[in-house]
Amino acid sequence: MTANPDGPPLGVAVLGHAFMGKAHSNAWRNVSAFYPGGPAVAQRVLAGRDPHGVAADAARYGWAEGSTDWRAVLARDDVQIVDICTPGHLHAELAVAALEAGKHVIVEKPLANSVAEAELMAAAARSARAAGVHAMVGFNYRRVPALALARQLIAEGRIGTVRQVRIAYLQDWLADDAAPMTWRLRRETAGSGALGDLASHAVDQIHFLLGARVTSVSATLNTFVDTRQGPDGPEPVTVDDAAWATLRLDSGAVASLEVTRMATGRKNALRIEVYGSGGHLSFDLERLNELHYYDAGAPPGLAGAARILVTEQSHPYLQAWWPPGHVLGWDHTFTSQAADFLAAVVAGSAPSPSFEDGLAVQKVLDAMVRSAAQGGTAVVLAGPGSRHDLSATGATDAS
Amino acid sequence: MTANPDGPPLGVAVLGHAFMGKAHSNAWRNVSAFYPGGPAVAQRVLAGRDPHGVAADAARYGWAEGSTDWRAVLARDDVQIVDICTPGHLHAELAVAALEAGKHVIVEKPLANSVAEAELMAAAARSARAAGVHAMVGFNYRRVPALALARQLIAEGRIGTVRQVRIAYLQDWLADDAAPMTWRLRRETAGSGALGDLASHAVDQIHFLLGARVTSVSATLNTFVDTRQGPDGPEPVTVDDAAWATLRLDSGAVASLEVTRMATGRKNALRIEVYGSGGHLSFDLERLNELHYYDAGAPPGLAGAARILVTEQSHPYLQAWWPPGHVLGWDHTFTSQAADFLAAVVAGSAPSPSFEDGLAVQKVLDAMVRSAAQGGTAVVLAGPGSRHDLSATGATDAS
Amino acid sequence: MTANPDGPPLGVAVLGHAFMGKAHSNAWRNVSAFYPGGPAVAQRVLAGRDPHGVAADAARYGWAEGSTDWRAVLARDDVQIVDICTPGHLHAELAVAALEAGKHVIVEKPLANSVAEAELMAAAARSARAAGVHAMVGFNYRRVPALALARQLIAEGRIGTVRQVRIAYLQDWLADDAAPMTWRLRRETAGSGALGDLASHAVDQIHFLLGARVTSVSATLNTFVDTRQGPDGPEPVTVDDAAWATLRLDSGAVASLEVTRMATGRKNALRIEVYGSGGHLSFDLERLNELHYYDAGAPPGLAGAARILVTEQSHPYLQAWWPPGHVLGWDHTFTSQAADFLAAVVAGSAPSPSFEDGLAVQKVLDAMVRSAAQGGTAVVLAGPGSRHDLSATGATDAS
Amino acid sequence: MTANPDGPPLGVAVLGHAFMGKAHSNAWRNVSAFYPGGPAVAQRVLAGRDPHGVAADAARYGWAEGSTDWRAVLARDDVQIVDICTPGHLHAELAVAALEAGKHVIVEKPLANSVAEAELMAAAARSARAAGVHAMVGFNYRRVPALALARQLIAEGRIGTVRQVRIAYLQDWLADDAAPMTWRLRRETAGSGALGDLASHAVDQIHFLLGARVTSVSATLNTFVDTRQGPDGPEPVTVDDAAWATLRLDSGAVASLEVTRMATGRKNALRIEVYGSGGHLSFDLERLNELHYYDAGAPPGLAGAARILVTEQSHPYLQAWWPPGHVLGWDHTFTSQAADFLAAVVAGSAPSPSFEDGLAVQKVLDAMVRSAAQGGTAVVLAGPGSRHDLSATGATDAS
Repeated sequence: MTANPDGPPLGVAVLGHAFMGKAHSNAWRNVSAFYPGGPAVAQRVLAGRDPHGVAADAARYGWAEGSTDWRAVLARDDVQIVDICTPGHLHAELAVAALEAGKHVIVEKPLANSVAEAELMAAAARSARAAGVHAMVGFNYRRVPALALARQLIAEGRIGTVRQVRIAYLQDWLADDAAPMTWRLRRETAGSGALGDLASHAVDQIHFLLGARVTSVSATLNTFVDTRQGPDGPEPVTVDDAAWATLRLDSGAVASLEVTRMATGRKNALRIEVYGSGGHLSFDLERLNELHYYDAGAPPGLAGAARILVTEQSHPYLQAWWPPGHVLGWDHTFTSQAADFLAAVVAGSAPSPSFEDGLAVQKVLDAMVRSAAQGGTAVVLAGPGSRHDLSATGATDAS
Repeated sequence: MTANPDGPPLGVAVLGHAFMGKAHSNAWRNVSAFYPGGPAVAQRVLAGRDPHGVAADAARYGWAEGSTDWRAVLARDDVQIVDICTPGHLHAELAVAALEAGKHVIVEKPLANSVAEAELMAAAARSARAAGVHAMVGFNYRRVPALALARQLIAEGRIGTVRQVRIAYLQDWLADDAAPMTWRLRRETAGSGALGDLASHAVDQIHFLLGARVTSVSATLNTFVDTRQGPDGPEPVTVDDAAWATLRLDSGAVASLEVTRMATGRKNALRIEVYGSGGHLSFDLERLNELHYYDAGAPPGLAGAARILVTEQSHPYLQAWWPPGHVLGWDHTFTSQAADFLAAVVAGSAPSPSFEDGLAVQKVLDAMVRSAAQGGTAVVLAGPGSRHDLSATGATDAS
Repeated sequence: MTANPDGPPLGVAVLGHAFMGKAHSNAWRNVSAFYPGGPAVAQRVLAGRDPHGVAADAARYGWAEGSTDWRAVLARDDVQIVDICTPGHLHAELAVAALEAGKHVIVEKPLANSVAEAELMAAAARSARAAGVHAMVGFNYRRVPALALARQLIAEGRIGTVRQVRIAYLQDWLADDAAPMTWRLRRETAGSGALGDLASHAVDQIHFLLGARVTSVSATLNTFVDTRQGPDGPEPVTVDDAAWATLRLDSGAVASLEVTRMATGRKNALRIEVYGSGGHLSFDLERLNELHYYDAGAPPGLAGAARILVTEQSHPYLQAWWPPGHVLGWDHTFTSQAADFLAAVVAGSAPSPSFEDGLAVQKVLDAMVRSAAQGGTAVVLAGPGSRHDLSATGATDAS
Repeated sequence: MTANPDGPPLGVAVLGHAFMGKAHSNAWRNVSAFYPGGPAVAQRVLAGRDPHGVAADAARYGWAEGSTDWRAVLARDDVQIVDICTPGHLHAELAVAALEAGKHVIVEKPLANSVAEAELMAAAARSARAAGVHAMVGFNYRRVPALALARQLIAEGRIGTVRQVRIAYLQDWLADDAAPMTWRLRRETAGSGALGDLASHAVDQIHFLLGARVTSVSATLNTFVDTRQGPDGPEPVTVDDAAWATLRLDSGAVASLEVTRMATGRKNALRIEVYGSGGHLSFDLERLNELHYYDAGAPPGLAGAARILVTEQSHPYLQAWWPPGHVLGWDHTFTSQAADFLAAVVAGSAPSPSFEDGLAVQKVLDAMVRSAAQGGTAVVLAGPGSRHDLSATGATDAS
């Protein structure tokens, strides 16, 4: 199904209306204003469990209506795109159903709570693709202009052969011992803690920036506060508060990774440093409009990490937005993501990152869990022929 | 005219559809999603000169229709708010007409190109206010959360008695000698150069942050590149490229001000430092989510400028947006500005900053021009009355 | 042997006159000027292998004479302090001999190239201590004022319970593939690469800042450029270029560690972040006069990492130096180290860090090597009763 | 008098043993260790008023003896260099006497407390030069490697034509109202306040970096706290706490200058930004090892201010010191200054900055005072033929 840019608008439904539902709604409401070349979009329906809440949020966020019946949403002829913003344990069921209903699908990251679910989803996406139906996983940080620029500079060889990556995602919303129990801290609902929530972004960035894959993983997990106050009294925390890993990549590079929700004073610090034989790049999501670039080939005495304010018209995504120096915020990444998704749908090409990309992340997270369970012993990731192997066609598309 | 929050939506018209029209349209399209407590808003019409362009932009930015006839727009019963985003020399005519038509008015900064125009507009606003019609000048940086926080901290006495302000607004889009002639570089169309464009923001921030007024001004203006290539050959640049001033304030503080479009490598660096007897605050618009706060009363050995990431729910405007660490961009300030304007209209109270505030800025800019013409000799600004007092004689004397 | 502050000067000999010999000479030449309360010091002799070079350097650096015979130096009655700045494989022999000769000893870090050597040295130091002869290992970064302040703040509980430490030491002098072979890249002479050179500092800082010990280690080592041009053609690099580890501490905290000589653009970036339940501290040796302190207990909305310029009279070591804001350099740490050493000698107390502290570092490095050889499997460090146990008395003093 | 590098050592005397005496003593004690190519130096005598204090300090700082009789010091045959570190009102008498006694002279900045004194001194220096006797004023920040590099980059045209300079020197030691009265706050002893102390450095840097001269000055002075507690009760402060100026330069550039002792939280923040048609440079003395360089000619999308860590062997002065990344402190500038002075003396060439350079600074400070007294009206500085004209030979050497 290739969309016609001059045809009727593409109808969109968002499933879920909490934090991510708000962010994705914002993207659909604004995408045509900033990326006018794409297809017309109609905000058809926002779906959720609570009838009153979803109706209010639908009105607030610009949707024509609210719904509590996701199956009915999938059955609508005027909905071509389904954007899944629910908790992770519902991703597989909803995404597979939507693809089978012939809807283009975006799933908020992480793709799923397990490798098994992710494999099901990737299989469904492969089947759908044959029918011209597209799927994408919402690693929105791929649309941070500074990170898109970083990827481009690495691909151009501007820092030479990449040897070391240092990536950390530091938050602090659990640093307070008195922070209460939530479903996010129970394994049965959340799958994992910082691992699925934060390390998924970090691993995807390694894939995105370097175009490399992880071959082995040595990891450690830790829960610093193992009991928190729940609605019925103290309750055990059954997910990780923090995770560490050293990752070997098929390119020969080595990456260190650290994610945590206990780093007091760090609010949303996804920090990435990439060191190559010819320079380095560094980035901090708390200053998302900046990329630091060190060019070892600068004239003698003049080398230094340059703070590039990534707001020039020549920078990725910036033509859509404002003049130089007029900085973007976190939510703009979702709007650009929606634009890229629409462009792919119109072109009939596969949007990126694919479900296979989401599955590849899931496998690394899974390897981290297994390595940590073995005291950090390196776990080798599946290569061709192993049980985690992507199918021949899938693997080709995945990277 | 007090708006009824449960009544019919307030109809909005934006006049002008270039850079500022895009930014203001974005605000109206999104204000209800982020500030749901306000009145319903309807994007009625976007007006401009070019029929084709304005129709396209109206569709793109979410307006019900486009128009090339601003008088017709003012005559519409379904338009209650007129938002003026045209070049400055049209502000006075449009704003006065809109107020006389009973519309609430926002005028993009600077209020006008001259004190005389600004006085006309302030007079019109005073008349309108008596009829319950409100006017506001769009100094959007008052809605940067970090600056709103700075104002609050100063008002709370957190840095003691303010003594020195260092304010600079540095851009570089004219640093290249080969940058072409534009209407912005001709005095007849632009009024002034960096002065009106950049110093207006800076002066308004002094007023906003300190609640003080300028009493005397010693200034210098300079044009570094006095000829540029126009459509018909070389043409003289008749406005300033840069301006400097030392300002004495009625509080006893002294402010230094420097604005320029020639600061190679600075894209949008509105930098503000406020030094008080008990601490300091500093800010850079290129990092608009951050405020640095130095508390001299910290325990011995622990004083240091704290980088506050102004993204907490307790910070000004932040409840409307995202969780901590999820940073805002430049355009969010316009959305918050629209929300504040709507809240004032609904409450029947005067929105801030008022046209009088815009006039006060204009008088300082005018004093800078006069001082510079006299080789920097200090020009004394009007003194008697309260800081908002603009009695006929006072206003006359002031300019 | 307790020195008499009013008695004859303490004679000092430095063994080694390359980079570290220059740095330590500078310390002895200046210590009395900045720390006037200590004993008089006489720069007796600088020793090295090359007669011409050592004579020239002795004159240059303020020594009364040069020598090529370290045994003769140890035999001198007018030498009370022997400061060992030779390559690491000579540390054990020289230090044991000096202690047996009744000289107070400083050994430049790392203490030795192996645990076995370090144990010999620690045993010699214990014996000497009984005779009033003192020994110290030169982890000079303990005398960086910002790090001494950090330790103090942690000890005072200013960041609550420490949970995570992030420590990295990034240099780039091997980032260029064409950098030639040296003795530092051969295992037989250097022992290890980044591990002994850089991780030793990092591990000592963990001990120093937290007062905690490492209980288990999961590590990875890597050599990115495995052949370099030697004097006789290409030669294999037999040490690590970089090392990574996750360390569990007896306090319950977890530390991540990364050291490398391949981080293009990082010259001497020892970076330390310590996250506690109540705040964090961060530091970068490239800005050694600064400590960032985040206090989670700040008033609502005011928390932010404060950049403390550690140049106040109330800060550690600063009374000896200059007024606030007059920053120190890297070499000042050695002068302060010498002053602390002299103060301990005069007081007859054990200088810190002791050889046991140096041994403790060596054991962690050794565990890293073993873990890396086992694919990252965690290696548990010796507790009481194990073969790496410090003797009862030694263990007491070591921490 | 050209010194013989292989001859007897050059004998040095320092007059004054307070803050600056300590800093200059440190330089003489260390210069030969770091700059071994120069002449031998002998620390002969430290002079001051207090017999006990000067004797103790002489011993502490490495001087052969102390003295309370500066005339006797000047009469000594074994003293060839006199380094004047007294308060400013004694500079002229001591410097003229020393030059007349045939001694090479360094005078700590500012050269004098008035233009008249400075002219006397410059005349004495001219006479002495004819006899091979050299004089220098100690603007030590010319020996900050980052600033020496900045000068070099500007001279090479790396930032194109310089248009704007922003220079500020911010300290806070008077920010506390309760800070007591001192001689530094009385006009009769100190001459001026922040002006002579801080603006002198700033103006000299303009001269140094740009090789340009100030042609007109518009200035403001202010005293924020006009009474302070003296030994006998409240006493009026008769010098400026802060000063501001806009300076036009003969190159066509414009500089803004702000100096203050009231900038709470700024300890020693000499901040310099230089904007040219092709780039910019920026610097902060609180981070004295760093220079930021923006090259507008970078490839599209890659321009950004590069943080150059000025510690490479190729950077000015760095061969004398430590390997890359091993940062210098404030006091190292004096050692390098002494080395440059010695090199000039040995070569028989004029050291820089000369007394004429010191006089040029004094004239700008004087113009600032006069402009401020006239409400900021621009004061034109003397050009050829005016009363402040340097003599033909002097003027040639001065720039």
